[in-house]
Amino acid sequence: MTDHPPTVELSDEECWAMLHDQELGRLAFHLADEVHLVPVNFAVDHDRRLVIRTAEGSKLLGLTMNADVAFEVDEVVDDVASSVVIRGRAHELHGAEADAVDQLPLRPWVDEVRPVVVAIEVDEMTGRRHHLHRPWLHLRPDPDE
Amino acid sequence: MTDHPPTVELSDEECWAMLHDQELGRLAFHLADEVHLVPVNFAVDHDRRLVIRTAEGSKLLGLTMNADVAFEVDEVVDDVASSVVIRGRAHELHGAEADAVDQLPLRPWVDEVRPVVVAIEVDEMTGRRHHLHRPWLHLRPDPDE
Repeated sequence: MTDHPPTVELSDEECWAMLHDQELGRLAFHLADEVHLVPVNFAVDHDRRLVIRTAEGSKLLGLTMNADVAFEVDEVVDDVASSVVIRGRAHELHGAEADAVDQLPLRPWVDEVRPVVVAIEVDEMTGRRHHLHRPWLHLRPDPDE
Repeated sequence: MTDHPPTVELSDEECWAMLHDQELGRLAFHLADEVHLVPVNFAVDHDRRLVIRTAEGSKLLGLTMNADVAFEVDEVVDDVASSVVIRGRAHELHGAEADAVDQLPLRPWVDEVRPVVVAIEVDEMTGRRHHLHRPWLHLRPDPDE
């Protein structure tokens, strides 16, 4: 048993703090009639929107046809799982706006050329923190017994 | 520099092994004209499909209107990031098929009633392993100097 409430909502401030702490999120987007989902490196642009980089001709550019996207980060630390889910609109950045992204900590983990910069404008953001109920983790034999 | 190729494709067997090792994935689905994305606890059903549980009336039941879904797991261990992305079709299980899911290690982390069992049939599965290029992690000052 625990004294923690099982689930609490995060404030917008807590959501942005969690987004700042993460480098890997998952982006869901429309491609024709299908929903697609990819892990992406991202950065936060002025607590206002997210930015990602992608390659010319990538599947991900399907989002230029239908801007409606969803984005998620999550994290599990000990018995606490947190997640932030965003719904928003994606659009490609050009010129000075795209160049400005070089100043953000947007660091692709894979060394390939990704000249296209995409911003995700946030329409809705929901953060949740769960105090986990995982009794099976406590069923291990006590090594001192 | 590294001797590893930066990205390798995982075999189906490696994808299923990774899915077995994970308890938390992310599910993207259509809800009317929008794409939605939620973290979900899941289990593998006989290396053939995934199963999840949800509550009556949950947003996630949008997938009963449009079965087209995408699902993702990922993991970062040291300098290696792996992910599996699935595209498939979701449908609710009933009766004996739903009861059989009680035998799988489908263990919701949050203690709430989730009587609805949903299977995700796998149409396409793509696994990737990236040997990460994160030079900034190696830019820390050497504590011995």
